Amino acid sequence: MSVHTEQSAVTVLGLGPMGRALAGAFLDAGLRTTVWNRTPGRDRELVARGAVSARSVEEAAAASRLTVVCVVNYDAVDTILRREAVTDALKGRTVVNLTADTPDRARDAAAWAAEHGIRYLDGAIMTPTPTIGTPAAVFLHSGPNDLYHKHQPVLEALGGTHTHLGEEIGRAAAYDVALLDIFWTAMAGYAHAVAVAHAEGIAARELAPFAKGIGDLLPPIFEGLAAEVEAGTSSDEGSPLTSVASSMAHVIHTSEAHGIDAGVMRAAEGLARRAIGQGHGTDGFIRVAELLGRR
Amino acid sequence: MSVHTEQSAVTVLGLGPMGRALAGAFLDAGLRTTVWNRTPGRDRELVARGAVSARSVEEAAAASRLTVVCVVNYDAVDTILRREAVTDALKGRTVVNLTADTPDRARDAAAWAAEHGIRYLDGAIMTPTPTIGTPAAVFLHSGPNDLYHKHQPVLEALGGTHTHLGEEIGRAAAYDVALLDIFWTAMAGYAHAVAVAHAEGIAARELAPFAKGIGDLLPPIFEGLAAEVEAGTSSDEGSPLTSVASSMAHVIHTSEAHGIDAGVMRAAEGLARRAIGQGHGTDGFIRVAELLGRR
Repeated sequence: MSVHTEQSAVTVLGLGPMGRALAGAFLDAGLRTTVWNRTPGRDRELVARGAVSARSVEEAAAASRLTVVCVVNYDAVDTILRREAVTDALKGRTVVNLTADTPDRARDAAAWAAEHGIRYLDGAIMTPTPTIGTPAAVFLHSGPNDLYHKHQPVLEALGGTHTHLGEEIGRAAAYDVALLDIFWTAMAGYAHAVAVAHAEGIAARELAPFAKGIGDLLPPIFEGLAAEVEAGTSSDEGSPLTSVASSMAHVIHTSEAHGIDAGVMRAAEGLARRAIGQGHGTDGFIRVAELLGRR
Repeated sequence: MSVHTEQSAVTVLGLGPMGRALAGAFLDAGLRTTVWNRTPGRDRELVARGAVSARSVEEAAAASRLTVVCVVNYDAVDTILRREAVTDALKGRTVVNLTADTPDRARDAAAWAAEHGIRYLDGAIMTPTPTIGTPAAVFLHSGPNDLYHKHQPVLEALGGTHTHLGEEIGRAAAYDVALLDIFWTAMAGYAHAVAVAHAEGIAARELAPFAKGIGDLLPPIFEGLAAEVEAGTSSDEGSPLTSVASSMAHVIHTSEAHGIDAGVMRAAEGLARRAIGQGHGTDGFIRVAELLGRR
């Protein structure tokens, strides 16, 4: 019975909005959930829902076979975990680190865990806090296969889809970074377009249906271009790089004529011009991906 | 009968890939189509399909009540149209300029047309060449209402959806620029993500389904944020600007650790950091749009 309890117990370190959402989903799934946060008082609502409040990281770590960490970045992870009392408590147990950072930091954390006899999985949460515990949540995982499959039932209590991307521990963070790259660059483009439109007397709500139309074009293009990247080809899809650079220049001129910073598009135009300068003027824009990767 | 012929006749100036597609769609719709291009020989296939090849711009302009111009930019438009023989031929007739450029250039072209007794509509083609003549084509128009409605039947022969955005002549170009801003910034993010993923050992086809997933998030976000922009609010949707800047830094560090230029994301991060520095750290990223627009 105590083994059963420990197997279906989980510890959550870090009770920011995402950590609280994770702990709440574990509680909703009926798991014995122990929580800890550096700043006290963040666990009140969770304790009212049945969570066990630990007084220290080591006490929290000792309470479950599985500890999920979700804090601001890996500097914070290191501050919390890299103390003797904590490593002693975690020895032989598993840490699933859902904190966002770079692939190199994930690799460094895995090396530290291996040195201390701690089993380690790295993960990334791709969807915002309100999705946790719902079918809309998306989690990416990397690390040892056996370890992932052992803890998969508990992790799936978080809802949504979970994808194990392989044993290379940096893989989840690498996907995370690449997908954040797409998302936040696109958002920068949208925010800038809203500013330029506003300066031209176009309200955001007037632009919205057309902006949505542009957004609708992107998913199939993202998917379709992958085949070209793999093949090393680069069809222009009606927009050769020379024409793309010209469009980008129109954006920059219109923006700057209104005194609106165009640094993002200037950087993008630089990539297009560089590719044109290297003889790729009739290629499609995706040729830029290959040139970026050349050292 | 000759009136009927002239009413349903159209001239196309500029026979690049887009101009040829426009002329082809007019021919398919059974319109008497006269074509001209600066570099000869581009009209062969169109003539075989029934187009009339004009020997000069003025001859082409005189052949129809409506002249559609689609060339590389407004410098090229000016070179073609701003000659006495041509303005004489166009006097009392209508020019629909589907060439892409900035709103200021559209306003300048309209002023020139008014000075010479030429009626003028400006437009933008939002979809690539292969969509022309199909339901997927998207055209934006601006200029006098009566003039647009007079020529609407001929313009609709180009297929797809046509939206008249209002009488302000720069409006179509302003929408065009804002939408190109969204599209090409997003594409820059995708190309960069592909390069970073590749450096991390992730093939474009492995990233593709997740990249598509990110793309699927964008259209409703673009639409939904419009209401916040209008209201001057900025909910964080689970991602306050401090967290966004942190994500952006992860992208930059991962990219630059592989020797991959991160100029686009560095510029985007700069916008986020600027907003944070102005006290907006707990706002959502869209706050950046408002700050960009402040002079």
